[in-house]
Amino acid sequence: VLDETLDTIKGIKLFQSKKGYRFSVDALLLEDFISQNWWKDRSRIYDGMEIGTGSGIISILLAKRNKNTRIKAVEIQESLAELAKRNVELNHLANSIEIINSDIRETVKTLSPGVFDYVFSNPPFRRQKTGLLNRNMERAIARHEIKITLSDIIETASYLLKNRGRFYIIYHPFRLMDLICILKEKGLEPKRMRFVHSRACEEARMVMIEASKRGRTWLKVDPPLYIYNDNDEYSDEMKRIYI
Amino acid sequence: VLDETLDTIKGIKLFQSKKGYRFSVDALLLEDFISQNWWKDRSRIYDGMEIGTGSGIISILLAKRNKNTRIKAVEIQESLAELAKRNVELNHLANSIEIINSDIRETVKTLSPGVFDYVFSNPPFRRQKTGLLNRNMERAIARHEIKITLSDIIETASYLLKNRGRFYIIYHPFRLMDLICILKEKGLEPKRMRFVHSRACEEARMVMIEASKRGRTWLKVDPPLYIYNDNDEYSDEMKRIYI
Repeated sequence: VLDETLDTIKGIKLFQSKKGYRFSVDALLLEDFISQNWWKDRSRIYDGMEIGTGSGIISILLAKRNKNTRIKAVEIQESLAELAKRNVELNHLANSIEIINSDIRETVKTLSPGVFDYVFSNPPFRRQKTGLLNRNMERAIARHEIKITLSDIIETASYLLKNRGRFYIIYHPFRLMDLICILKEKGLEPKRMRFVHSRACEEARMVMIEASKRGRTWLKVDPPLYIYNDNDEYSDEMKRIYI
Repeated sequence: VLDETLDTIKGIKLFQSKKGYRFSVDALLLEDFISQNWWKDRSRIYDGMEIGTGSGIISILLAKRNKNTRIKAVEIQESLAELAKRNVELNHLANSIEIINSDIRETVKTLSPGVFDYVFSNPPFRRQKTGLLNRNMERAIARHEIKITLSDIIETASYLLKNRGRFYIIYHPFRLMDLICILKEKGLEPKRMRFVHSRACEEARMVMIEASKRGRTWLKVDPPLYIYNDNDEYSDEMKRIYI
Protein backbone atom coordinates (compact mmCIF):
# COMPACT_ATOMS: atom_id res chain seq x y z
CA VAL A 1 0.00 0.00 0.00
CA LEU A 2 1.42 3.34 -1.07
CA ASP A 3 1.00 5.37 2.08
CA GLU A 4 2.56 2.73 4.32
CA THR A 5 6.04 1.88 5.50
CA LEU A 6 7.30 -1.57 6.44
CA ASP A 7 9.49 -1.33 9.51
CA THR A 8 11.51 -3.84 11.48
CA ILE A 9 11.77 -3.55 15.25
CA LYS A 10 13.06 -6.13 17.76
CA GLY A 11 12.70 -8.99 15.31
CA ILE A 12 9.17 -8.21 14.21
CA LYS A 13 7.94 -6.57 11.00
CA LEU A 14 5.34 -3.87 11.07
CA PHE A 15 3.27 -2.08 8.46
CA GLN A 16 2.58 1.45 9.55
CA SER A 17 0.71 4.32 7.97
CA LYS A 18 2.97 7.16 6.89
CA LYS A 19 0.60 9.84 8.05
CA GLY A 20 -1.61 8.07 10.60
CA TYR A 21 -0.79 6.41 13.89
CA ARG A 22 2.82 5.25 14.23
CA PHE A 23 4.17 3.54 17.32
CA SER A 24 6.40 5.49 19.68
CA VAL A 25 8.81 4.50 22.40
CA ASP A 26 5.87 4.09 24.83
CA ALA A 27 4.90 0.83 23.13
CA LEU A 28 8.37 -0.66 23.58
CA LEU A 29 8.61 0.49 27.17
CA LEU A 30 5.26 -0.98 28.12
CA GLU A 31 5.94 -4.32 26.43
CA ASP A 32 9.25 -4.57 28.28
CA PHE A 33 7.58 -3.63 31.59
CA ILE A 34 4.90 -6.29 31.13
CA SER A 35 7.44 -8.98 30.26
CA GLN A 36 9.80 -8.20 33.13
CA ASN A 37 8.55 -10.04 36.17
CA TRP A 38 5.66 -12.14 35.20
CA TRP A 39 5.03 -15.14 32.92
CA LYS A 40 6.61 -17.29 35.60
CA ASP A 41 4.77 -20.50 34.93
CA ARG A 42 5.91 -21.69 31.52
CA SER A 43 3.58 -24.68 31.57
CA ARG A 44 0.36 -22.74 31.28
CA ILE A 45 -1.22 -20.25 28.91
CA TYR A 46 -1.86 -16.68 30.06
CA ASP A 47 -4.90 -14.97 28.60
CA GLY A 48 -4.36 -11.32 27.79
CA MET A 49 -6.49 -8.46 26.52
CA GLU A 50 -5.15 -5.31 24.91
CA ILE A 51 -7.37 -2.25 24.93
CA GLY A 52 -6.57 -0.11 21.89
CA THR A 53 -3.93 -2.06 19.99
CA GLY A 54 -3.27 0.42 17.17
CA SER A 55 -0.95 -1.29 14.68
CA GLY A 56 -0.74 -4.27 17.05
CA ILE A 57 2.85 -3.65 18.05
CA ILE A 58 2.64 -4.38 21.79
CA SER A 59 0.63 -7.60 21.42
CA ILE A 60 2.91 -8.77 18.62
CA LEU A 61 6.08 -8.13 20.63
CA LEU A 62 4.57 -9.83 23.69
CA ALA A 63 3.39 -12.91 21.80
CA LYS A 64 6.72 -13.16 20.01
CA ARG A 65 8.66 -13.00 23.27
CA ASN A 66 6.30 -15.10 25.39
CA LYS A 67 5.08 -18.28 23.76
CA ASN A 68 2.71 -19.03 26.63
CA THR A 69 0.23 -16.27 25.99
CA ARG A 70 -2.94 -15.78 23.97
CA ILE A 71 -4.16 -12.25 23.39
CA LYS A 72 -7.39 -10.60 22.32
CA ALA A 73 -6.49 -7.15 21.00
CA VAL A 74 -9.32 -4.68 20.55
CA GLU A 75 -9.11 -1.65 18.28
CA ILE A 76 -12.00 0.73 17.71
CA GLN A 77 -10.73 2.22 14.44
CA GLU A 78 -11.38 0.04 11.42
CA SER A 79 -8.33 1.17 9.42
CA LEU A 80 -6.00 0.41 12.34
CA ALA A 81 -7.67 -2.92 13.13
CA GLU A 82 -7.17 -4.00 9.49
CA LEU A 83 -3.53 -2.93 9.70
CA ALA A 84 -3.08 -4.83 12.98
CA LYS A 85 -4.59 -7.99 11.40
CA ARG A 86 -2.11 -7.81 8.53
CA ASN A 87 0.75 -7.26 11.00
CA VAL A 88 -0.30 -10.30 13.05
CA GLU A 89 -0.28 -12.45 9.91
CA LEU A 90 2.98 -10.96 8.69
CA ASN A 91 4.58 -12.15 11.94
CA HIS A 92 2.88 -15.58 11.86
CA LEU A 93 1.07 -14.97 15.13
CA ALA A 94 -2.53 -15.62 14.08
CA ASN A 95 -2.67 -18.53 16.56
CA SER A 96 -1.73 -16.28 19.46
CA ILE A 97 -3.40 -12.96 18.71
CA GLU A 98 -6.97 -12.22 17.75
CA ILE A 99 -7.58 -8.66 16.53
CA ILE A 100 -11.12 -7.45 17.24
CA ASN A 101 -12.43 -4.35 15.49
CA SER A 102 -14.87 -3.05 18.06
CA ASP A 103 -15.49 -0.61 20.84
CA ILE A 104 -14.15 -2.30 24.00
CA ARG A 105 -17.32 -1.23 25.81
CA GLU A 106 -19.28 -3.32 23.30
CA THR A 107 -16.78 -6.19 23.33
CA VAL A 108 -17.04 -6.71 27.08
CA LYS A 109 -20.76 -7.33 26.77
CA THR A 110 -19.90 -10.51 24.87
CA LEU A 111 -17.34 -11.69 27.44
CA SER A 112 -17.61 -13.23 30.90
CA PRO A 113 -16.13 -11.30 33.82
CA GLY A 114 -12.97 -12.45 35.55
CA VAL A 115 -11.49 -14.56 32.79
CA PHE A 116 -8.31 -12.70 31.83
CA ASP A 117 -4.90 -13.07 33.46
CA TYR A 118 -3.78 -9.67 32.31
CA VAL A 119 -5.07 -6.61 30.52
CA PHE A 120 -2.92 -3.82 29.17
CA SER A 121 -3.27 -0.48 27.45
CA ASN A 122 -1.21 2.36 26.05
CA PRO A 123 -4.18 4.68 26.18
CA PRO A 124 -4.81 7.99 24.53
CA PHE A 125 -3.41 10.84 26.51
CA ARG A 126 -2.61 14.35 25.54
CA ARG A 127 1.05 14.54 24.64
CA GLN A 128 3.18 17.33 25.97
CA LYS A 129 3.89 18.79 22.55
CA THR A 130 0.33 18.93 21.27
CA GLY A 131 -2.23 20.82 23.24
CA LEU A 132 -4.38 21.08 20.12
CA LEU A 133 -6.17 18.16 18.60
CA ASN A 134 -4.15 16.57 15.86
CA ARG A 135 -5.61 17.30 12.45
CA ASN A 136 -5.06 13.75 11.37
CA MET A 137 -8.05 12.05 12.96
CA GLU A 138 -6.44 8.59 13.28
CA ARG A 139 -3.55 10.01 15.23
CA ALA A 140 -5.84 12.28 17.21
CA ILE A 141 -8.04 9.42 18.43
CA ALA A 142 -4.99 7.41 19.41
CA ARG A 143 -3.70 10.35 21.43
CA HIS A 144 -6.71 12.02 22.94
CA GLU A 145 -9.64 10.88 24.97
CA ILE A 146 -12.09 11.29 22.08
CA LYS A 147 -13.53 7.81 21.89
CA ILE A 148 -12.84 6.40 25.33
CA THR A 149 -11.95 7.80 28.75
CA LEU A 150 -9.36 6.54 31.18
CA SER A 151 -12.15 5.59 33.54
CA ASP A 152 -13.83 3.45 30.84
CA ILE A 153 -10.59 1.62 30.15
CA ILE A 154 -9.91 0.87 33.79
CA GLU A 155 -13.47 -0.18 34.57
CA THR A 156 -13.38 -2.55 31.61
CA ALA A 157 -10.00 -3.96 32.63
CA SER A 158 -11.20 -4.59 36.16
CA TYR A 159 -14.33 -6.36 34.90
CA LEU A 160 -12.31 -8.63 32.63
CA LEU A 161 -9.56 -9.57 35.10
CA LYS A 162 -9.43 -12.57 37.38
CA ASN A 163 -8.73 -11.83 41.03
CA ARG A 164 -4.98 -11.15 41.33
CA GLY A 165 -4.90 -10.66 37.55
CA ARG A 166 -2.67 -7.84 36.39
CA PHE A 167 -3.40 -4.57 34.65
CA TYR A 168 -0.56 -2.72 32.90
CA ILE A 169 -0.66 0.86 31.70
CA ILE A 170 1.72 3.57 30.53
CA TYR A 171 0.54 7.07 31.18
CA HIS A 172 1.47 10.66 31.65
CA PRO A 173 2.65 11.51 35.21
CA PHE A 174 0.80 14.83 35.09
CA ARG A 175 -2.40 12.87 35.61
CA LEU A 176 -0.96 10.20 37.91
CA MET A 177 -3.26 11.20 40.75
CA ASP A 178 -6.40 10.70 38.67
CA LEU A 179 -5.04 7.43 37.35
CA ILE A 180 -4.27 6.07 40.81
CA CYS A 181 -7.59 7.10 42.30
CA ILE A 182 -9.51 5.55 39.41
CA LEU A 183 -7.49 2.32 39.71
CA LYS A 184 -8.26 2.05 43.43
CA GLU A 185 -11.90 2.93 42.91
CA LYS A 186 -12.22 0.12 40.37
CA GLY A 187 -10.53 -2.45 42.63
CA LEU A 188 -7.12 -2.45 40.94
CA GLU A 189 -4.32 -2.03 43.48
CA PRO A 190 -1.05 -0.56 42.15
CA LYS A 191 1.80 -2.95 43.01
CA ARG A 192 4.69 -1.69 40.89
CA MET A 193 5.40 1.68 39.41
CA ARG A 194 8.21 2.93 37.23
CA PHE A 195 8.92 6.46 36.10
CA VAL A 196 10.52 7.26 32.76
CA HIS A 197 12.69 10.36 32.49
CA SER A 198 14.33 11.62 29.29
CA ARG A 199 17.46 12.36 31.27
CA ALA A 200 18.54 11.94 34.90
CA CYS A 201 18.18 15.66 35.58
CA GLU A 202 14.68 16.02 34.11
CA GLU A 203 11.21 15.50 35.49
CA ALA A 204 9.39 12.27 34.64
CA ARG A 205 7.61 12.21 31.28
CA MET A 206 5.92 8.83 31.57
CA VAL A 207 4.89 6.41 34.28
CA MET A 208 4.20 2.67 34.01
CA ILE A 209 1.98 0.91 36.52
CA GLU A 210 1.26 -2.73 37.27
CA ALA A 211 -1.91 -3.13 39.31
CA SER A 212 -3.43 -6.27 40.82
CA LYS A 213 -7.15 -6.94 40.97
CA ARG A 214 -8.16 -7.00 44.63
CA GLY A 215 -4.49 -7.10 45.64
CA ARG A 216 -3.32 -5.81 48.99
CA THR A 217 -1.81 -2.34 49.44
CA TRP A 218 1.91 -2.67 48.95
CA LEU A 219 3.66 -0.64 46.28
CA LYS A 220 7.17 -1.00 44.94
CA VAL A 221 8.64 1.96 43.05
CA ASP A 222 11.26 0.64 40.63
CA PRO A 223 14.53 2.41 39.86
CA PRO A 224 13.80 5.10 37.27
CA LEU A 225 14.34 4.50 33.58
CA TYR A 226 16.30 7.10 31.63
CA ILE A 227 15.95 7.33 27.85
CA TYR A 228 19.27 9.13 27.34
CA ASN A 229 22.52 9.09 29.27
CA ASP A 230 24.62 12.14 30.12
CA ASN A 231 26.20 12.08 26.65
CA ASP A 232 22.76 12.32 24.98
CA GLU A 233 23.07 8.78 23.68
CA TYR A 234 20.47 6.11 24.42
CA SER A 235 21.04 4.71 27.91
CA ASP A 236 22.18 1.09 28.23
CA GLU A 237 18.71 0.10 29.33
CA MET A 238 17.09 1.79 26.32
CA LYS A 239 19.53 -0.02 24.05
CA ARG A 240 18.43 -3.28 25.65
CA ILE A 241 14.77 -2.36 25.19
CA TYR A 242 15.18 -1.22 21.58
CA ILE A 243 17.20 -4.17 20.31
CA VAL B 1 21.97 15.99 80.82
CA LEU B 2 23.77 12.68 81.00
CA ASP B 3 21.81 10.63 78.48
CA GLU B 4 22.03 13.30 75.77
CA THR B 5 24.41 14.22 72.99
CA LEU B 6 24.99 17.69 71.58
CA ASP B 7 25.32 17.47 67.82
CA THR B 8 26.02 20.02 65.10
CA ILE B 9 24.33 19.72 61.73
CA LYS B 10 24.12 22.31 58.94
CA GLY B 11 25.02 25.16 61.25
CA ILE B 12 22.55 24.33 63.99
CA LYS B 13 23.14 22.69 67.36
CA LEU B 14 20.90 19.95 68.58
CA PHE B 15 20.47 18.11 71.87
CA GLN B 16 19.38 14.56 71.24
CA SER B 17 18.61 11.66 73.50
CA LYS B 18 21.15 8.87 73.31
CA LYS B 19 18.59 6.12 73.42
CA GLY B 20 15.35 7.79 72.32
CA TYR B 21 14.39 9.54 69.14
CA ARG B 22 17.33 10.77 67.03
CA PHE B 23 16.90 12.53 63.72
CA SER B 24 17.59 10.63 60.54
CA VAL B 25 18.25 11.66 56.98
CA ASP B 26 14.49 12.03 56.38
CA ALA B 27 14.47 15.28 58.35
CA LEU B 28 17.21 16.80 56.23
CA LEU B 29 15.59 15.65 53.00
CA LEU B 30 12.20 17.07 53.90
CA GLU B 31 13.62 20.41 55.03
CA ASP B 32 15.52 20.70 51.76
CA PHE B 33 12.42 19.75 49.76
CA ILE B 34 10.31 22.39 51.52
CA SER B 35 12.92 25.09 51.01
CA GLN B 36 13.54 24.35 47.35
CA ASN B 37 10.90 26.16 45.35
CA TRP B 38 8.91 28.27 47.69
CA TRP B 39 9.48 31.24 49.98
CA LYS B 40 9.47 33.42 46.90
CA ASP B 41 8.19 36.62 48.45
CA ARG B 42 10.88 37.80 50.83
CA SER B 43 8.80 40.78 51.96
CA ARG B 44 6.19 38.77 53.83
CA ILE B 45 6.04 36.27 56.66
CA TYR B 46 4.93 32.68 55.95
CA ASP B 47 3.07 30.93 58.74
CA GLY B 48 3.97 27.28 59.13
CA MET B 49 2.81 24.38 61.28
CA GLU B 50 4.81 21.24 61.97
CA ILE B 51 2.90 18.16 63.06
CA GLY B 52 5.15 16.02 65.26
CA THR B 53 8.37 18.01 65.58
CA GLY B 54 10.41 15.53 67.66
CA SER B 55 13.66 17.27 68.65
CA GLY B 56 12.59 20.26 66.52
CA ILE B 57 15.21 19.70 63.83
CA ILE B 58 13.12 20.44 60.72
CA SER B 59 11.54 23.61 62.09
CA ILE B 60 14.91 24.81 63.36
CA LEU B 61 16.63 24.21 60.02
CA LEU B 62 13.76 25.90 58.15
CA ALA B 63 13.67 28.95 60.41
CA LYS B 64 17.44 29.24 60.26
CA ARG B 65 17.48 29.13 56.47
CA ASN B 66 14.34 31.19 55.85
CA LYS B 67 14.11 34.35 57.90
CA ASN B 68 10.59 35.08 56.63
CA THR B 69 8.80 32.28 58.42
CA ARG B 70 7.11 31.76 61.76
CA ILE B 71 6.37 28.19 62.86
CA LYS B 72 4.13 26.51 65.40
CA ALA B 73 5.60 23.06 66.04
CA VAL B 74 3.42 20.54 67.85
CA GLU B 75 4.78 17.49 69.67
CA ILE B 76 2.60 15.05 71.61
CA GLN B 77 5.39 13.54 73.74
CA GLU B 78 6.32 15.74 76.70
CA SER B 79 9.98 14.69 76.87
CA LEU B 80 10.50 15.46 73.19
CA ALA B 81 8.62 18.76 73.39
CA GLU B 82 10.90 19.83 76.28
CA LEU B 83 13.94 18.84 74.25
CA ALA B 84 12.65 20.77 71.22
CA LYS B 85 12.10 23.88 73.36
CA ARG B 86 15.69 23.72 74.58
CA ASN B 87 16.92 23.25 71.02
CA VAL B 88 14.95 26.28 69.81
CA GLU B 89 16.52 28.42 72.53
CA LEU B 90 19.98 26.97 71.92
CA ASN B 91 19.70 28.20 68.33
CA HIS B 92 18.23 31.61 69.29
CA LEU B 93 15.02 30.98 67.37
CA ALA B 94 12.44 31.56 70.10
CA ASN B 95 11.03 34.47 68.07
CA SER B 96 10.42 32.25 65.04
CA ILE B 97 9.39 28.90 66.51
CA GLU B 98 6.79 28.12 69.15
CA ILE B 99 6.91 24.54 70.48
CA ILE B 100 3.51 23.27 71.64
CA ASN B 101 3.29 20.13 73.78
CA SER B 102 -0.09 18.81 72.77
CA ASP B 103 -2.03 16.39 70.65
CA ILE B 104 -2.50 18.11 67.28
CA ARG B 105 -6.14 17.04 67.30
CA GLU B 106 -6.57 19.10 70.48
CA THR B 107 -4.45 21.99 69.23
CA VAL B 108 -6.57 22.52 66.11
CA LYS B 109 -9.63 23.11 68.27
CA THR B 110 -7.97 26.28 69.51
CA LEU B 111 -7.05 27.52 66.00
CA SER B 112 -9.06 29.07 63.17
CA PRO B 113 -9.22 27.17 59.88
CA GLY B 114 -7.38 28.36 56.80
CA VAL B 115 -4.72 30.47 58.46
CA PHE B 116 -1.48 28.64 57.66
CA ASP B 117 0.64 29.06 54.52
CA TYR B 118 2.20 25.66 54.92
CA VAL B 119 2.01 22.57 57.09
CA PHE B 120 4.58 19.80 57.15
CA SER B 121 5.16 16.45 58.78
CA ASN B 122 7.70 13.66 58.96
CA PRO B 123 5.25 11.13 60.39
CA PRO B 124 6.36 8.80 63.18
CA PHE B 125 6.85 5.58 61.28
CA ARG B 126 9.79 6.87 59.30
CA ARG B 127 11.70 7.60 62.48
CA GLN B 128 13.80 4.52 62.39
CA LYS B 129 17.54 4.46 62.28
CA THR B 130 17.63 1.73 59.73
CA GLY B 131 17.12 2.45 56.07
CA LEU B 132 16.61 -1.20 55.35
CA LEU B 133 13.14 -2.28 54.47
CA ASN B 134 12.30 -4.82 57.08
CA ARG B 135 9.62 -7.42 56.73
CA ASN B 136 7.73 -6.13 59.69
CA MET B 137 7.29 -2.70 58.15
CA GLU B 138 3.58 -3.14 57.79
CA ARG B 139 3.22 -4.11 61.41
CA ALA B 140 5.61 -1.35 62.41
CA ILE B 141 3.52 1.22 60.55
CA ALA B 142 0.39 0.09 62.32
CA ARG B 143 2.18 0.20 65.65
CA HIS B 144 3.47 3.70 65.09
CA GLU B 145 0.05 4.90 64.10
CA ILE B 146 -1.33 4.19 67.55
CA LYS B 147 -0.97 7.84 68.52
CA ILE B 148 -2.08 9.44 65.28
CA THR B 149 -3.06 8.12 61.89
CA LEU B 150 -1.98 9.43 58.51
CA SER B 151 -5.58 10.38 57.90
CA ASP B 152 -5.67 12.46 61.10
CA ILE B 153 -2.50 14.30 60.10
CA ILE B 154 -3.77 15.09 56.61
CA GLU B 155 -7.23 16.12 57.75
CA THR B 156 -5.69 18.44 60.29
CA ALA B 157 -3.29 19.91 57.73
CA SER B 158 -6.12 20.54 55.28
CA TYR B 159 -8.19 22.26 57.98
CA LEU B 160 -5.32 24.54 58.94
CA LEU B 161 -4.18 25.51 55.43
CA LYS B 162 -5.25 28.53 53.41
CA ASN B 163 -6.47 27.81 49.90
CA ARG B 164 -3.39 27.19 47.76
CA GLY B 165 -1.40 26.67 50.96
CA ARG B 166 1.12 23.84 50.83
CA PHE B 167 1.40 20.56 52.68
CA TYR B 168 4.73 18.74 52.73
CA ILE B 169 5.29 15.17 53.81
CA ILE B 170 7.97 12.49 53.58
CA TYR B 171 6.61 8.99 53.58
CA HIS B 172 7.20 5.41 52.68
CA PRO B 173 6.42 4.56 49.03
CA PHE B 174 4.88 1.23 50.06
CA ARG B 175 1.82 3.16 51.16
CA LEU B 176 1.93 5.85 48.49
CA MET B 177 -1.48 4.84 47.17
CA ASP B 178 -3.18 5.34 50.53
CA LEU B 179 -1.33 8.59 51.03
CA ILE B 180 -2.41 9.98 47.66
CA CYS B 181 -6.03 8.93 48.02
CA ILE B 182 -6.25 10.45 51.51
CA LEU B 183 -4.67 13.68 50.26
CA LYS B 184 -7.20 13.99 47.44
CA GLU B 185 -10.08 13.06 49.72
CA LYS B 186 -9.09 15.86 52.11
CA GLY B 187 -8.78 18.45 49.32
CA LEU B 188 -4.98 18.46 49.07
CA GLU B 189 -3.85 18.06 45.47
CA PRO B 190 -0.35 16.61 44.96
CA LYS B 191 1.66 19.01 42.80
CA ARG B 192 5.23 17.78 43.16
CA MET B 193 6.62 14.41 44.07
CA ARG B 194 10.17 13.20 44.52
CA PHE B 195 11.37 9.67 45.11
CA VAL B 196 14.46 8.88 47.17
CA HIS B 197 16.48 5.79 46.31
CA SER B 198 19.52 4.54 48.24
CA ARG B 199 21.23 3.84 44.94
CA ALA B 200 20.31 4.27 41.26
CA CYS B 201 19.67 0.54 40.84
CA GLU B 202 17.40 0.16 43.88
CA GLU B 203 13.71 0.65 44.44
CA ALA B 204 12.54 3.87 46.11
CA ARG B 205 12.71 3.92 49.90
CA MET B 206 11.08 7.28 50.51
CA VAL B 207 8.81 9.70 48.72
CA MET B 208 8.33 13.41 49.33
CA ILE B 209 5.13 15.15 48.30
CA GLU B 210 4.11 18.79 48.04
CA ALA B 211 0.34 19.17 47.87
CA SER B 212 -1.75 22.29 47.36
CA LYS B 213 -5.04 22.93 49.11
CA ARG B 214 -7.75 23.01 46.44
CA GLY B 215 -5.09 23.14 43.71
CA ARG B 216 -5.77 21.85 40.22
CA THR B 217 -4.67 18.39 39.04
CA TRP B 218 -1.21 18.73 37.59
CA LEU B 219 1.64 16.72 39.03
CA LYS B 220 5.34 17.11 38.42
CA VAL B 221 7.58 14.16 39.29
CA ASP B 222 11.05 15.51 40.06
CA PRO B 223 14.28 13.77 39.06
CA PRO B 224 14.98 11.06 41.64
CA LEU B 225 17.31 11.67 44.55
CA TYR B 226 20.00 9.09 45.24
CA ILE B 227 21.62 8.85 48.66
CA TYR B 228 24.75 7.08 47.43
CA ASN B 229 26.58 7.15 44.11
CA ASP B 230 27.98 4.12 42.31
CA ASN B 231 31.11 4.19 44.51
CA ASP B 232 29.00 3.91 47.69
CA GLU B 233 29.87 7.47 48.66
CA TYR B 234 27.24 10.12 49.35
CA SER B 235 25.96 11.52 46.06
CA ASP B 236 26.75 15.14 45.22
CA GLU B 237 23.19 16.10 46.04
CA MET B 238 23.35 14.40 49.44
CA LYS B 239 26.59 16.25 50.18
CA ARG B 240 24.80 19.50 49.36
CA ILE B 241 21.88 18.54 51.62
CA TYR B 242 24.08 17.41 54.50
CA ILE B 243 26.44 20.37 54.62
